[in-house]
Amino acid sequence: MSSQPPVDPPARPARRRAPSLVLVNTGDGKGKSTAAFGVVLRAVARGWKVCVIQFLKSGRWRTGEEELGRRLGVDWNPLGDGFTWDSEDMEASEAKAAAAWAAARRVLASGDYQLVVLDEVTYPMNWGWIDTAQVVAAIRDRPPQVNVVATGRDAPAELVEVADTVTEMRKVRHAYDSGVVARRGIDY
Amino acid sequence: MSSQPPVDPPARPARRRAPSLVLVNTGDGKGKSTAAFGVVLRAVARGWKVCVIQFLKSGRWRTGEEELGRRLGVDWNPLGDGFTWDSEDMEASEAKAAAAWAAARRVLASGDYQLVVLDEVTYPMNWGWIDTAQVVAAIRDRPPQVNVVATGRDAPAELVEVADTVTEMRKVRHAYDSGVVARRGIDY
Repeated sequence: MSSQPPVDPPARPARRRAPSLVLVNTGDGKGKSTAAFGVVLRAVARGWKVCVIQFLKSGRWRTGEEELGRRLGVDWNPLGDGFTWDSEDMEASEAKAAAAWAAARRVLASGDYQLVVLDEVTYPMNWGWIDTAQVVAAIRDRPPQVNVVATGRDAPAELVEVADTVTEMRKVRHAYDSGVVARRGIDY
Repeated sequence: MSSQPPVDPPARPARRRAPSLVLVNTGDGKGKSTAAFGVVLRAVARGWKVCVIQFLKSGRWRTGEEELGRRLGVDWNPLGDGFTWDSEDMEASEAKAAAAWAAARRVLASGDYQLVVLDEVTYPMNWGWIDTAQVVAAIRDRPPQVNVVATGRDAPAELVEVADTVTEMRKVRHAYDSGVVARRGIDY
């Protein structure tokens, strides 16, 4: 054939309202959890019920976001074991992650919240402490009104696959690298 | 010479507390402004005075973050002209941007706020509506207790240069591309 048939321009997808969305914030830069908390702020402003489950932060931390989140009526659950990589008892840390996931699974399936934040959930997934396929299935099969934000470095491909919006927060520069310690009011 | 002098390993920077930080959130992905609002939440939790200046959003919008921010005592100023690229009067849009910058400059220099958010400030910078060198100088010469978060695509190199932490929010996937319209509670 000497000529190709005319090619239609790529169809623009029809506009639609999704009943809910899944957002994933990953990458090595600052802003993954911070942006999740920005979404919490929007959700609270709209009168949504919001649940935050933190897979690394423990109750021993008292972050600004937790304090203010609770004040705003957010169901805030720091269920991790702190800086897990410093843990002296990895089995206990792993058991905490499993318990956090059991709680998250119930919360997702309940349909009681319009927004569920799974903060730093990728770490226990990548460490093999919680089952990635289970997490992905629980997100995929959630009640349709439940929005989900999942954060953490190195989001597994299956988690990326189930998401509507995925942002890689890429570090261009981080104050920490020039010696600046984490700052109250900015970093926690 | 047959041998090189021994080379010291690169010195690890001494830990230090910065009096304040400059954060820049740039890139084509979701989360630039959202993460800025997450920092607002932390700042409010710590009792800081916070000022938000929005260079695109206009007062005709009523975003969730604005409503809740005001409720939390944030000085919230949507000084833009809406979706500027649809503007029918570019001169008016440009004048609004100049006025927004004049306000931001006063706010930065006043030292009255521990956190100043310059939301979507990169757009008028890149359009030549406000002077990048002036913005960078105002940030660099601010009172030392004033933290700054600046957001928007294509952050100019001079702005990146003056920042302590720079994150590129890179779009891996965005719901909008599959036809999902912006959602209240998540996107605004």
